[in-house]
Amino acid sequence: MTNIFLQLKLNLMKWHENEIRVRYAETDKMGIVHHSNYYVWFELGRSEFCRSRGFSYLEMEDKESAQMLVAESYCRYKSPAFYEDVLTIRTQVAKIRSRSIFFVYQIYRPSDDTILAEGETLHIVTDKNNKIRSMPKRFKELLLSEIEEDEPFPEDQAPS
Amino acid sequence: MTNIFLQLKLNLMKWHENEIRVRYAETDKMGIVHHSNYYVWFELGRSEFCRSRGFSYLEMEDKESAQMLVAESYCRYKSPAFYEDVLTIRTQVAKIRSRSIFFVYQIYRPSDDTILAEGETLHIVTDKNNKIRSMPKRFKELLLSEIEEDEPFPEDQAPS
Amino acid sequence: MTNIFLQLKLNLMKWHENEIRVRYAETDKMGIVHHSNYYVWFELGRSEFCRSRGFSYLEMEDKESAQMLVAESYCRYKSPAFYEDVLTIRTQVAKIRSRSIFFVYQIYRPSDDTILAEGETLHIVTDKNNKIRSMPKRFKELLLSEIEEDEPFPEDQAPS
Amino acid sequence: MTNIFLQLKLNLMKWHENEIRVRYAETDKMGIVHHSNYYVWFELGRSEFCRSRGFSYLEMEDKESAQMLVAESYCRYKSPAFYEDVLTIRTQVAKIRSRSIFFVYQIYRPSDDTILAEGETLHIVTDKNNKIRSMPKRFKELLLSEIEEDEPFPEDQAPS
Repeated sequence: MTNIFLQLKLNLMKWHENEIRVRYAETDKMGIVHHSNYYVWFELGRSEFCRSRGFSYLEMEDKESAQMLVAESYCRYKSPAFYEDVLTIRTQVAKIRSRSIFFVYQIYRPSDDTILAEGETLHIVTDKNNKIRSMPKRFKELLLSEIEEDEPFPEDQAPS
Repeated sequence: MTNIFLQLKLNLMKWHENEIRVRYAETDKMGIVHHSNYYVWFELGRSEFCRSRGFSYLEMEDKESAQMLVAESYCRYKSPAFYEDVLTIRTQVAKIRSRSIFFVYQIYRPSDDTILAEGETLHIVTDKNNKIRSMPKRFKELLLSEIEEDEPFPEDQAPS
Repeated sequence: MTNIFLQLKLNLMKWHENEIRVRYAETDKMGIVHHSNYYVWFELGRSEFCRSRGFSYLEMEDKESAQMLVAESYCRYKSPAFYEDVLTIRTQVAKIRSRSIFFVYQIYRPSDDTILAEGETLHIVTDKNNKIRSMPKRFKELLLSEIEEDEPFPEDQAPS
Repeated sequence: MTNIFLQLKLNLMKWHENEIRVRYAETDKMGIVHHSNYYVWFELGRSEFCRSRGFSYLEMEDKESAQMLVAESYCRYKSPAFYEDVLTIRTQVAKIRSRSIFFVYQIYRPSDDTILAEGETLHIVTDKNNKIRSMPKRFKELLLSEIEEDEPFPEDQAPS
């Protein structure tokens, strides 16, 4: 298990953010949120991320028969979340290839300015029969629409 | 996200195995098991692993005030699981330190001899107030009890 | 199974309303929301209802050691809910006694003006050891604060 | 909310029984099983009930396009369930009509001979498009196969 946040220089200004409040049913007998629920939250983040890019994931799945099957998922839990906490799900596309897409996430609690968890999911694009296909062009463009290009070299540092 | 199965030479004979049947509520609209449920299954595997070592995780948590807080979790999904599938959860301790424990898992479907997923969880031992503590000696010994030592060199291959 | 909506003349203007969006993980292989999730939504409704009355359920549970243990739950499903649906949870206190409280709910979809489900939960007030106790006076008053009294007879219809 | 156990004279010898062990993820911050999970257990009971009658619910749903949509669900919680409890799910068909089926359940803990909960679910048979249809004859016969007929009057009490 490694952490993509150490590997990629993510532009932290580019998170898509949406807010949730911790549900009672999401807690366990330890009194904190059960760790499996962070993956449900990441999924929520993806869904809202798509919506912020101008399309619904539902539409991509049902109308275009392109589903983002989860191929890998990872989460690092840094601090527990509690019932009724108001949390920010931060979502970002780290990489898109023709048949895969890589998301990264943070779960952030504004009330004490704490990052509770960092996560990653890798998705393979498949059709309804779970066969690999390429992502419909329109959705790929929308997902990429606000992802910054690599900064050009400042002129005075450009390789000669 | 890296895969411990590539890094460790796990002794595949040492899995603790227990069986589950996929529940309807574990499926999602894709018709397959929702990826977050694999972490619930890993947890089941840990619980049964402890029982196979002669203690209940409940006892460790409630009587000794030692809980195995999940610090990291990872899963690689190789093939989907379906409603009513009979699956084997394979669990193994990969490493124990004084204050942490590292489990690895496989989700295996005997009916078609397929490994559906491989996973890992890293745990920090804490007390009821979520403060780090060392694992009670008795439980550590039980967890280690059947983990094989490195094989000694067979005599005729021993370095001279 | 009977339906309280037939038994009580609920003042339908008095619903507390809060909004949710259906999560992917809440669907099942039928392509609709799994029926158990409605109870999680009712719980959300209760939580938001308490907040609208000026207190948090968390506070009542953790500071006053008064928990609303679910003693009975009921739901009638009239029409399915789908992934990404925006739904309104409608919550109302139907009855409060010293040691119990009775909530009723509707799950409503504004986009097509449809009531998807009607539900009820009966709660017993207990302490942390699950022993029955009476509800702290302050919380009882807050819960009752906006529940309308029975209308007095209009003067010209009053019994003589 | 009424309780079918008071209304029907169920033959308590006829329960189909299957065993589960409470999962950690099924508990909540109260330290007991979250009430919504009982409906997941009832569903498990239905699934095992069908299997005990010689067919799989999966087969009925996928091959015959007949699904048992939940129309109503009810549960009375009498005593809490805890992590690692071994429980018996008791399932019984209370009534079958051409387009609906009514199940009743008990959640029983053998270790202290306690009935933790009693429940009911009413199902409407629908096709894949959620339209009402009648239950395939073969499955109806299998479900009814061991349900006792009303006892005939003992001879000496027969109406003359």
